[in-house]
Parts: sequence; structure tokens; C-alpha cells
Amino acid sequence: MMDAPHGSGAEAGLCPTGPFDREARAAVYAAIHTRRDVRDQFLDRCLPEDLVRRLLEAAHAAPSVGFMQPWSFILVRSPETRERAYEAFSRANDEAAGLFVDERQALYRSLKLEGIRKAPLSIIVTCDPDRAGPVVLGRTHNPRMDVYSTVCAVQNLWLAARAEGVGVGWVSIFHDSDVRALLGIPERVEIVAWLCLGYVEELYAQPELALKGWRQRLPLDDLICEERWQDPAG
Amino acid sequence: MMDAPHGSGAEAGLCPTGPFDREARAAVYAAIHTRRDVRDQFLDRCLPEDLVRRLLEAAHAAPSVGFMQPWSFILVRSPETRERAYEAFSRANDEAAGLFVDERQALYRSLKLEGIRKAPLSIIVTCDPDRAGPVVLGRTHNPRMDVYSTVCAVQNLWLAARAEGVGVGWVSIFHDSDVRALLGIPERVEIVAWLCLGYVEELYAQPELALKGWRQRLPLDDLICEERWQDPAG
Repeated sequence: MMDAPHGSGAEAGLCPTGPFDREARAAVYAAIHTRRDVRDQFLDRCLPEDLVRRLLEAAHAAPSVGFMQPWSFILVRSPETRERAYEAFSRANDEAAGLFVDERQALYRSLKLEGIRKAPLSIIVTCDPDRAGPVVLGRTHNPRMDVYSTVCAVQNLWLAARAEGVGVGWVSIFHDSDVRALLGIPERVEIVAWLCLGYVEELYAQPELALKGWRQRLPLDDLICEERWQDPAG
Repeated sequence: MMDAPHGSGAEAGLCPTGPFDREARAAVYAAIHTRRDVRDQFLDRCLPEDLVRRLLEAAHAAPSVGFMQPWSFILVRSPETRERAYEAFSRANDEAAGLFVDERQALYRSLKLEGIRKAPLSIIVTCDPDRAGPVVLGRTHNPRMDVYSTVCAVQNLWLAARAEGVGVGWVSIFHDSDVRALLGIPERVEIVAWLCLGYVEELYAQPELALKGWRQRLPLDDLICEERWQDPAG
């Protein structure tokens, strides 16, 4: 797609490009619009090494501030480690449930919010702020750009997984210190995401929290402003 | 693709799914691997409204913690506003350049790090931490999950733009206060990204910072650990 240099005199490394064809555009949008945060639809079937590699290559192709590539990926398959992670989730989840009251708490407790034991593979995505030295091009005025780059890697992986028929669930209900101790992650390295991965044969047609009555999709028009900030309507 | 309910007795809302076909998978990977952070290849041609809408719908389809959808999108086309944003960038960029020395500073100063004036459209992506009230499902133990959701929206938009033949550049060299004042963004709302968008007919075959000798791609194998954290090799 991007092999031929663009005419004579073009700057080195630039290649001609354009929009994808109709089917290819539709495929990209299908990945974006049918991706789900999966908690319970995982099949107990190993993910092939070459598939996992493609997902990690997709993550590694994310944009990163100053091209620092601050991410690392810890692949956890051990059932013992996943069991201990589940216990850490459970403790945190009990605390979180207590912050909601009455029907809302009952609904919260009815939701399945992780697939740590059911999904055969967990990928923990971390961010090393020191990966490119203390001064990083583009990070000086926004010190969180390294973590933002790492989140872009997560989203790349998630969309690639969708195309591969693999579900991904992002678990965020943990005490950071529990996961850090469990996996031996040094203090200076930030834990960005615990992802659960496994093949899926079913996905919700809409986000699960909408279907289950937790919270509905907002109208996009309310989230768009022209030229400067306006408070959302309503 | 996801219309038919899955047999009798299936949970409401679940639909059969599977991997995309070979061409569709290739399209998703092409978007991921040929996406670039564009600074100088923007064409001076308006982006049609329906195209911009598709990009914003892609962003709005991002995962969000507790389905809070904390993002807003400020569309800036005004040349005056973009000129003032460029001035804010320039001041910050001079400060940033001063943190590098000798050849490194010369190389830094030779890089074009924004396309604010050249790209016809800027989209500023913000995160409202109060969008779903003070207690958000999944945010209690990681208060930055709202911003991470917003970054997922940015990456969705970026990949959709690639498929549309639209280049995107993320500008992070600003004092937050300058952009806040310029666009009237309230203090409680976080500014996550200033994105420059425009049609492109050329893209770099590799990340621009690698081609220009700033920093090279790291070997993926050095960034993968099995079962628990290991310090990167070397």
C-alpha cells in the first residue's frame, strides 16, 4: 500500500496515500463500533501465539510522545496468578459497591465486572516514564502524555482483537498496590490496564452497561461545540 | 453483522460474532500500522461535514469507564483561533527546545511539531470528570480512568481518519492555561488533546521521529514479559 516513493524530489520516506476503499473503511468502522468490553463471553480456548503476537504488534504501533514507546506487556496465563488477581478485584469491588445505595447498589452487585478467571489470558499494560530519559519531546508541558500513549496502545490492541474474534475486557477495580505486589512491578512503573482476553462467539449488540440499565448512550450532538467551549445542553 | 439473536434462551442483547474475514482483518491492521502523527502533509481542503461526523461517531464509540462518556469535542476552524493556538505552541516550544543541548537541540529545532495553521480543522478533546456524578463505576480505585477513556476516543478517531485518507496530528506542546483561556474551557474540565486534521496525499512510511533520527523503534521482544515483571533486557 505504501511502497513507491512519491515522484522525484519528494521528501525521503514519504509515500502516496489516500482513503481506504469502501470495504476496508467499513471494516475499520465495524471494529470500532462492534468492539465491546467483555466480562463473561470468554471461551476457554487458548489463543495461538501468532495471534497474540499480532495483537502486541498492533499495540506497539500506537502513537507515542517523542516516540518514547513507554509501554510493556506482562502476559499472565497462570491460573494461580489470575485467581489471586481475582481476589484483589473482589476486595476492591466490595468497597466500590458500598459507595452506591439501595437499588443502585443491588444493580451494581448484579453486574459482572471482570473476566480474570474465565479469560485464558491477561495482558497487563504498564508505562515506564523513564524509558526515554528525563526530558521527552512533547511531554514537557503535559507530563501525562506518556500514559496517554500507553492508552493508545491498549485501544489499538482492543480493535485488532475485535477483528480477530477475540474479546477484551479492561479491569480497573483493583488497589494498585495489590497488582504491583502480585506481579513484582517496580514503583516507578505505572500500571495502566489489566486486560482479559479470550475468543468470543457472542458479543452484546450495545454496551453491556446500557443494556443492563446502568447508564445510557449520550446524544453525540450534546458533546460537540463549535469554535469554543459551551456547556452541554440541558 | 450482529443482527440475529443467538438461538433460543440466549441472553437478551447477545449476538453471534467471530473473526472478521481476511480482507477486513487486513484493513484494520492497515489502519493501525500506517497511521501517522501528521504535522506537515495536510492539504488545504475542507473536510466534509459527513466525514467529520463519522470521525466523531468513531470517537464516541470508545470504551468508557462506567459508560460515563466523559469526552467533549471542540471543533475549531477559525484561522484567528488557530493562529493564537500556534502562538501558544511557539512559546512553549521555545521553552522545550531549551531543555536539549548541542546537536540534540539543533535536531529538535529542525523538527516540525504541529500543523495547527496548515490543517483546516482542529478538534480539541476534553474530559469532564463530573459527567456521571461523583461516584463512577470502575473509577473508584483508579481516578484517571476517565481520562484514559477519553484517550481511547482519540485513538478511535485517529484510526477512522486514517481509513478516510485524513491525517491527524496530536499537539501536546502548550501551556494548558493558554488553551483554556483561548477556548473558554472551565477549570474542572481537563484538556486531553489538541488534534489537527486535514486530508493527506502522502504519509511517512515510518514514524517521522524515527526517519529524522530522533529515536528508533524498540524491539517488541524487549517489552514483553511472561507471568510477572522483568526489567527490559540490555
